[in-house]
Amino acid sequence: MNVEKVFVVGGGATKIGEHWDKSLRTLFVEAALEAVKDGGIELSDVEAVYVGNMSSGELQGQEHLGSLMATWLGIPGVAAAKIEAACASGSAAFHQAYLAVASGVYDCVLVGGVEKMTDAVVHDVTAALVMADDAEYTAFTGASFVGLNAIVYRYYMEKYGVKQEDIALFSVHDHKYAVDNPHAQFRFTVTLEKVLSSPLVADPIRLLECSPIGDGAAALVLCTEKFIKEKGLNVAVEVAASTAATDTISLADREDLTTLTATVKAAKKAYRTAKIEPKDIDVMEIHDAFTILGVIHLEDLGFAKKGEGWKLVKEGEIEKDAKIPTNLSGGLKARGHPVGATGVYQIYEIYQQLMGKAPNQVDGAEIGLAQSVGGVGGTVVINILRRVR
Amino acid sequence: MNVEKVFVVGGGATKIGEHWDKSLRTLFVEAALEAVKDGGIELSDVEAVYVGNMSSGELQGQEHLGSLMATWLGIPGVAAAKIEAACASGSAAFHQAYLAVASGVYDCVLVGGVEKMTDAVVHDVTAALVMADDAEYTAFTGASFVGLNAIVYRYYMEKYGVKQEDIALFSVHDHKYAVDNPHAQFRFTVTLEKVLSSPLVADPIRLLECSPIGDGAAALVLCTEKFIKEKGLNVAVEVAASTAATDTISLADREDLTTLTATVKAAKKAYRTAKIEPKDIDVMEIHDAFTILGVIHLEDLGFAKKGEGWKLVKEGEIEKDAKIPTNLSGGLKARGHPVGATGVYQIYEIYQQLMGKAPNQVDGAEIGLAQSVGGVGGTVVINILRRVR
Repeated sequence: MNVEKVFVVGGGATKIGEHWDKSLRTLFVEAALEAVKDGGIELSDVEAVYVGNMSSGELQGQEHLGSLMATWLGIPGVAAAKIEAACASGSAAFHQAYLAVASGVYDCVLVGGVEKMTDAVVHDVTAALVMADDAEYTAFTGASFVGLNAIVYRYYMEKYGVKQEDIALFSVHDHKYAVDNPHAQFRFTVTLEKVLSSPLVADPIRLLECSPIGDGAAALVLCTEKFIKEKGLNVAVEVAASTAATDTISLADREDLTTLTATVKAAKKAYRTAKIEPKDIDVMEIHDAFTILGVIHLEDLGFAKKGEGWKLVKEGEIEKDAKIPTNLSGGLKARGHPVGATGVYQIYEIYQQLMGKAPNQVDGAEIGLAQSVGGVGGTVVINILRRVR
Repeated sequence: MNVEKVFVVGGGATKIGEHWDKSLRTLFVEAALEAVKDGGIELSDVEAVYVGNMSSGELQGQEHLGSLMATWLGIPGVAAAKIEAACASGSAAFHQAYLAVASGVYDCVLVGGVEKMTDAVVHDVTAALVMADDAEYTAFTGASFVGLNAIVYRYYMEKYGVKQEDIALFSVHDHKYAVDNPHAQFRFTVTLEKVLSSPLVADPIRLLECSPIGDGAAALVLCTEKFIKEKGLNVAVEVAASTAATDTISLADREDLTTLTATVKAAKKAYRTAKIEPKDIDVMEIHDAFTILGVIHLEDLGFAKKGEGWKLVKEGEIEKDAKIPTNLSGGLKARGHPVGATGVYQIYEIYQQLMGKAPNQVDGAEIGLAQSVGGVGGTVVINILRRVR
């Protein structure tokens, strides 16, 4: 077995927001062209296009995004496909792009995540999102995605005796860092009081604990060492590990609601592949679609004991200059969460950190991790990038 | 560059039909378990699951098929994702599974295609299928998929002076062979007179020239040489080439409506990778969603000059014991076309041929090709399998 090394050579992203003047395809093309330009390559170098997207069929009445985006990029002819894994679609697309390059079959691949959640022409967004859970056993009951996460939240508080004010702090953290991020959706701070007094969406989850609906696209260019040498590129970042794991699609089949076993499995494999431990990670982006998830991920990724993830937030350990700088982009809560794009945004942000050009730069960051979740943990994809010079 | 060899070790498929008693997941699991059993492996050997599917969101209100199918197979934990490329979703999923194994990152991967087109609970099938074309420039006009193919059909007849009775023969051919295929949807013959007098769907396309709506799933197990040796498997078939190409998503942007450039590109690459020429192919399955497409594919794959593909059919050259045995499964017209599953059915059928256990067996078949089309040629995936002992 001889896995080809895979390098990240360029990235791009649109601002996340309500883009009433931009369609699904224009968002994707904007991010993709920026990634190609950033990489110093030509569009004609791209051999395959991967599109991470969850709900274009339900929201825009549009499938076949591989051919569509290749067409609108002006490079029909390349290989292309859409990858779907609910809210982890973007990171799952990155994983496929990684495998495509690691195989040696493709030397230069473009991967982008895109989602347009405003201006939905077919379904409403809540109906589209719950398709991430089991249609026959869960969604049919009328459960919404925030409702399912409320069950996790309540269960966690009861099991570990944790107060909501300690969990809700994650939102305050995210908003603080989004201020400096030009592509973030909500560039303003919020206080804990404001979070806790915001409208109740699904008890106990408050509005300001929920990631927002938004439109956006992010893209990255991946390539082989051979391609880099041929093009004379000066590349600095490699993919040290790219792993994916599943869990039962519904909470009802889980033994423990307070842990995502898919995170634990994917992380274990990723750490082993990259030959690192959690303490080696300089910066990370985690999938905090709701505040409680941020807390749980810190534990499942190996940074805190179960029931104690919130302490890292409260004690300032996830700040920029602290133990494990986390969600310096603003996270899902404040950077935004255009679902199928989010996984690629996270990796793009880690890439920026390792290149030394992130809005909230961690000095000398060498190793970064992005964790992405589909559904209520039915899929988790973890990617670890490493600066190589 | 050192691309790992990829082998096919087992396959399974459900009968295609109107499965009112089977859901999307039960169809997938049925085919997958048969593939695992056929391969002589254990479910616990499977490291990743790829699900080819086009319209589960639109028809069943269900996304996140990777986690769903892993759950229902009883192996949550594995990596998994859904791959979508319109009607080529199954073959695109196979291509990703191929890359996953070729990379050496995964040693044993399950790929299945599934589509449930009857019992659609959200959209109607016609509305779902047209999402394979451009929603903003084509589908919004009210065009249906059969209507778009009717334009191709008419254009071809005019350009090359070919009569409909010669093109419609493809349907007669398909039905003849479906009789012997236990998983075919329509196991009966039709006469040319019957085809030409069947109701007009979109001028000039007659009902009996159209592939039907149906439910079904097919699955294959792919693995590395290392896995084969460790398990002591007696494997006979390798993937000699797996290629994909795109074209503009809509006909309006094409220079020539009578050729699928994506077929030409993917085939050229596949022949080069497998180090073969068209004449080396012993058996093939091509994507004749409408009779005219079967004729065009014979030309684009290099078996006839443009405008003369129909002659191969008329002169018996695509029969079982003739020059290029084609669609001995019954093809899309009579085996059936559950869209996201079809690409995997085709490869399964080629696999059966190379294993010497196909319903319409070609004596001593050693090399087989499967060609799969998404949209009106926006995506084409070609896979070539070879018997290695």
